[in-house]
Amino acid sequence: LSGSARRFGESAAILLADLRLVWAEQMLRESGLAQRSLQQAWPRYDAMRTELAVGQFADLVNDARGVPALDAVLDVARRKSGNYTVRRPLEIGAAMAGCDGHTLALLGRYGAAVGEAFQLRDDLLGIFGSASATGKPSGGDLSEHKATSVVAAAHHMADATIRGQLTELMNTDHLDDAALARWRTLIVATGAVQWIEEMIADRVASARDEIHDAPINEPVQAALVNMAAICKVRAA
Amino acid sequence: LSGSARRFGESAAILLADLRLVWAEQMLRESGLAQRSLQQAWPRYDAMRTELAVGQFADLVNDARGVPALDAVLDVARRKSGNYTVRRPLEIGAAMAGCDGHTLALLGRYGAAVGEAFQLRDDLLGIFGSASATGKPSGGDLSEHKATSVVAAAHHMADATIRGQLTELMNTDHLDDAALARWRTLIVATGAVQWIEEMIADRVASARDEIHDAPINEPVQAALVNMAAICKVRAA
Repeated sequence: LSGSARRFGESAAILLADLRLVWAEQMLRESGLAQRSLQQAWPRYDAMRTELAVGQFADLVNDARGVPALDAVLDVARRKSGNYTVRRPLEIGAAMAGCDGHTLALLGRYGAAVGEAFQLRDDLLGIFGSASATGKPSGGDLSEHKATSVVAAAHHMADATIRGQLTELMNTDHLDDAALARWRTLIVATGAVQWIEEMIADRVASARDEIHDAPINEPVQAALVNMAAICKVRAA
Repeated sequence: LSGSARRFGESAAILLADLRLVWAEQMLRESGLAQRSLQQAWPRYDAMRTELAVGQFADLVNDARGVPALDAVLDVARRKSGNYTVRRPLEIGAAMAGCDGHTLALLGRYGAAVGEAFQLRDDLLGIFGSASATGKPSGGDLSEHKATSVVAAAHHMADATIRGQLTELMNTDHLDDAALARWRTLIVATGAVQWIEEMIADRVASARDEIHDAPINEPVQAALVNMAAICKVRAA
């Protein structure tokens, strides 16, 4: 009657996250940065936080649909992970440093491309990465039946027979190691992994092109190119 | 496998609440109020939000304990509902209007007393209020087995026999109308309702005393005394 331990833990975690949402904003406000810099940051900071919550809701809707369309998955990846992890923080920093509109737009495109590559790489590692490389259980995204870009791409590219097998795995509650291994093999057989790798390479190349023409000094250019390149590394 | 409708709804509600937490702060920042007024508001606003989350966590812990001690319930009521509903908003407004420290402290004491009276009244209405008066289902707090001040006071004041019956009701999952009615009768029999009414009257009297000596103009004094009096009304 006093509720389950799991529910208690979830409720406590939500409250802790509320505190962190409050504290993050408070820390930026009390950072000691000039009022002028902060005023450049706030609209972008607010947009980022709103975008994250809306993206998370879209993710929730996608998950409820079983296997959503690849476009829907990529859209969520862009709004939720990519923008939050790379694009918006980059834009916020650049705006606070007084970059002009041209540079901001360019960094925005760079950040969007790198953010998407980062998310796609994360989706591959979530299925094929080793626990030692990712720090998460191997095949974790499959165990949790997460409809990531890789899963959606595999369903999209599979023929009818393989798609039937993929759907059955997606709808099976508890999967043992053999079932997870079979699922991974089926995904590779559809060509989805190769396709996602090509998408990553494409995003990283776009990001590098943006930086190549940018009116940014040499060390910063090198750091940004380096950051993009990290997404290409196939840790396994 | 795609999860329950209930879980989807809860997740969506949490995200909507995150958005509202972000938007509330954004609206205050973009309100157009002078920077000087806002700087008076922020520390109090931040403290209020932190206090609310911490109070909510304390509430969660109390609920997990079955029937917590009355002191623990009142402490949560103060931190969560009272401060959030009355005291901190009053202090924020007064600080923004440029009130001195003496007036702020006085309004703080007034707000704490009214806030506590408000919460105690709410706890009584949650058990004895009619649906038409409260807009919530009658006896809702009992159906949900909420360990409010009234429930805690009844357990504290009951003799061993009645306490046994109260504990049994608290531990019964689904209660029909007859059981709820019996629970209400037992609570009244302990004297807890009378005691909570006395606590409300005591808090309202303290609040009025604070205002009586305050260096505040007449219409504002009258409004504050009136607000305190509303907590005395025994809507049923």
